[in-house]
Amino acid sequence: SSAVISNLTNTRVVYAGTSGALVDSANFTFANNTLSVLNLDVDGLASFDDIVVSAASTFSGAVDINADIGESFGSYKLGFDEEIVKYISSANIATGFHAGDPNWMQKTIELSINNQVSIGAHPSYPDLSGFGRRDMSLSKNEVENLIKYQVGALTGFVGIDNLSHVKPHGALYNKAVNDEDTALGIIEAIKSISSDLIHVVLAGSKWESLAQDQNVKIAKETYCLLYTSDVA
Amino acid sequence: SSAVISNLTNTRVVYAGTSGALVDSANFTFANNTLSVLNLDVDGLASFDDIVVSAASTFSGAVDINADIGESFGSYKLGFDEEIVKYISSANIATGFHAGDPNWMQKTIELSINNQVSIGAHPSYPDLSGFGRRDMSLSKNEVENLIKYQVGALTGFVGIDNLSHVKPHGALYNKAVNDEDTALGIIEAIKSISSDLIHVVLAGSKWESLAQDQNVKIAKETYCLLYTSDVA
Amino acid sequence: SSAVISNLTNTRVVYAGTSGALVDSANFTFANNTLSVLNLDVDGLASFDDIVVSAASTFSGAVDINADIGESFGSYKLGFDEEIVKYISSANIATGFHAGDPNWMQKTIELSINNQVSIGAHPSYPDLSGFGRRDMSLSKNEVENLIKYQVGALTGFVGIDNLSHVKPHGALYNKAVNDEDTALGIIEAIKSISSDLIHVVLAGSKWESLAQDQNVKIAKETYCLLYTSDVA
Amino acid sequence: SSAVISNLTNTRVVYAGTSGALVDSANFTFANNTLSVLNLDVDGLASFDDIVVSAASTFSGAVDINADIGESFGSYKLGFDEEIVKYISSANIATGFHAGDPNWMQKTIELSINNQVSIGAHPSYPDLSGFGRRDMSLSKNEVENLIKYQVGALTGFVGIDNLSHVKPHGALYNKAVNDEDTALGIIEAIKSISSDLIHVVLAGSKWESLAQDQNVKIAKETYCLLYTSDVA
Repeated sequence: SSAVISNLTNTRVVYAGTSGALVDSANFTFANNTLSVLNLDVDGLASFDDIVVSAASTFSGAVDINADIGESFGSYKLGFDEEIVKYISSANIATGFHAGDPNWMQKTIELSINNQVSIGAHPSYPDLSGFGRRDMSLSKNEVENLIKYQVGALTGFVGIDNLSHVKPHGALYNKAVNDEDTALGIIEAIKSISSDLIHVVLAGSKWESLAQDQNVKIAKETYCLLYTSDVA
Repeated sequence: SSAVISNLTNTRVVYAGTSGALVDSANFTFANNTLSVLNLDVDGLASFDDIVVSAASTFSGAVDINADIGESFGSYKLGFDEEIVKYISSANIATGFHAGDPNWMQKTIELSINNQVSIGAHPSYPDLSGFGRRDMSLSKNEVENLIKYQVGALTGFVGIDNLSHVKPHGALYNKAVNDEDTALGIIEAIKSISSDLIHVVLAGSKWESLAQDQNVKIAKETYCLLYTSDVA
Repeated sequence: SSAVISNLTNTRVVYAGTSGALVDSANFTFANNTLSVLNLDVDGLASFDDIVVSAASTFSGAVDINADIGESFGSYKLGFDEEIVKYISSANIATGFHAGDPNWMQKTIELSINNQVSIGAHPSYPDLSGFGRRDMSLSKNEVENLIKYQVGALTGFVGIDNLSHVKPHGALYNKAVNDEDTALGIIEAIKSISSDLIHVVLAGSKWESLAQDQNVKIAKETYCLLYTSDVA
Repeated sequence: SSAVISNLTNTRVVYAGTSGALVDSANFTFANNTLSVLNLDVDGLASFDDIVVSAASTFSGAVDINADIGESFGSYKLGFDEEIVKYISSANIATGFHAGDPNWMQKTIELSINNQVSIGAHPSYPDLSGFGRRDMSLSKNEVENLIKYQVGALTGFVGIDNLSHVKPHGALYNKAVNDEDTALGIIEAIKSISSDLIHVVLAGSKWESLAQDQNVKIAKETYCLLYTSDVA
């Protein structure tokens, strides 16, 4: 499950890695031995038509292209799932706590399967009204249980054997980067579900290091923010 | 996974069958070839101390004693889980839509395992404020997805191999008794998760008949309402 | 607070009145003594650019043009609020149970005030995941309390003196048309808040008749479904 | 609206004021010119029967005795509302975001009126599963809108003229003590609803000082934790 983005000519790529430096697509390079996942973040896109996802030669090889999908809810449609699944090798599917619901989970899994995209869970703090972007104070045990619930919920649709990875969403992800209790709650929950599940972690974070300590499968991630073409 | 209630001397047992007649425990009998589950319903109990769940000789054998547990939520404690798990052979654990939450699910599973009680899921309509007791109009597909989500969520804690059965809650259960779309949504969801899961259905209902048609594992249930001892 | 739609040339208008007959805009007429509100329903619109809301000469006079707005939620944007407020004389603002949230309520009230549109509450069953379109079984008292809560919530932003009317949403509205307990729950809740509030009811319904019995202020409504121009 | 607690002989009173010092009931004194509200916190009580709320002579006079009530939800009953309303002069009624629902709000208002207790709103972060006790990161504007929504909702039952005060709950209250944006969001929301509403603030806090700056009505509060009598 790896993918190649075919060209990047009209797209502003902002590399939000550990250094925080902005890097234009022209200069975009991966150190493949330290990064394994590139997340395409479409939050800045007004329309998918405005961008051309395009290739950096350095993307070829071991990099997995990933996106958060299934973030619609009830009557509310969000994102560009049907377009973006063509460009990714793995998907993080929202599991109902910040976005997604049982009906959208079913549809998004079908979309992922039809596009041969690996399926992962995208669990969050319980914050539908804030889209999981507001920090919340949860204990390690609360985090662990939240993850078990949401990852389990997704397996109800796809089966544990067809789930490849888990990547937390928004404020929960951001908290895990530096907060040991949060990171451990996530790691131990995933581990307790299956040792085959890949833990998607921010490359270079304390979270990555804590996961390494537990000998779990890890995918080290960075971000690529996709903006509409008129972004300066 | 079958159990024997050891004596029933001080307990008023109210048989809430189709006739609505009250039957004292002394006369309580099961036709074991038509019933396989007796649900102990504690909603009428002010305190568990008031009753002594006790044996009808006719309970011995194939009858599984079952109760709905894990129906607390956040700071709200409900039911007599720690007492009743001593008297049952299987538990229906609330999965967060009418009651229960990830933390209570974790605790309730531990309680069930410590008491050697078989674990089942107790999914519901999405109606926390109405405790899942208000009828809702959902399509077959919506029901199917609700069940997959909630049953899956429970497997996140216990694993699919340790889940024995699924029994819908409240208004969803009542709707399934006579409504074909609801019953089929439930049956097909459970079946898609695992052919090993037991479908708990109301004995003698259309739902039971629809489940029989699909050759799934079935447990036929009736109810035993436990009241405090001063019930006339 | 009355409005005139300026022309209707390119718009298919579907009259969804009590007779159920479809009436093209060319033939659209109101009997002003029986109807006082025309609701513009944009659910069938892919884009507001596709339609030209236009005048039927018969709209002039006492007819109030109304729309449901503020139905976004958190990160989810829905509807064409900024466009449609230019064409309406009164707005039904979602109050958080099927759509809307405190932040969107604030924004939508500002939008309404800036466009000199009368502000009304648009309360619903508690069904965010179903957008309030799924029937639920609630008692008269539960309906009454739901209405008080949601109408009150809107007055927290705008003040009781600046609230003109209440119009229930979706399945709750549909239930009120024929179900006496639901209609009375709604009527009595609104009446208890203020005798100045206008009750928006479906013209010709049992609900209208029950409201007439209580001598409350009534606006009799029908629907105008706006489709994109390629609707046959 | 002031009250006298009649005796305190068997009750351990823990004074959780700004100094953090524990003060036994025997030594309990108020400086009436700096404190105006004493909140009776029953979270530590197993049963109301276990305590005897009793009089410190220093309570007489200007001190308002206050409690959080209406914190039940749906089928979940919490607290000792029917007992405690006999001992208080004002009540903070939960408004649905951490506890409470439209039906319980109606019941709790009736209970308060029947016991001649002043009615206030007890708004919270949107965190039903965490009982509003988990800190959340909300902007000033989000806080402001949350307060308007919840305070407004309560006025739907009781009318703005019958609402005396607003006291935020749990983590939102705790955040307001030191966080300027949170405190200002609360103060400005209440002020925008009515200049007659009393702002209940923690005595001696930054929040109190910010409220003083805006010339709003203020009640300065401290806490009295009620424990069962066997607390050492």
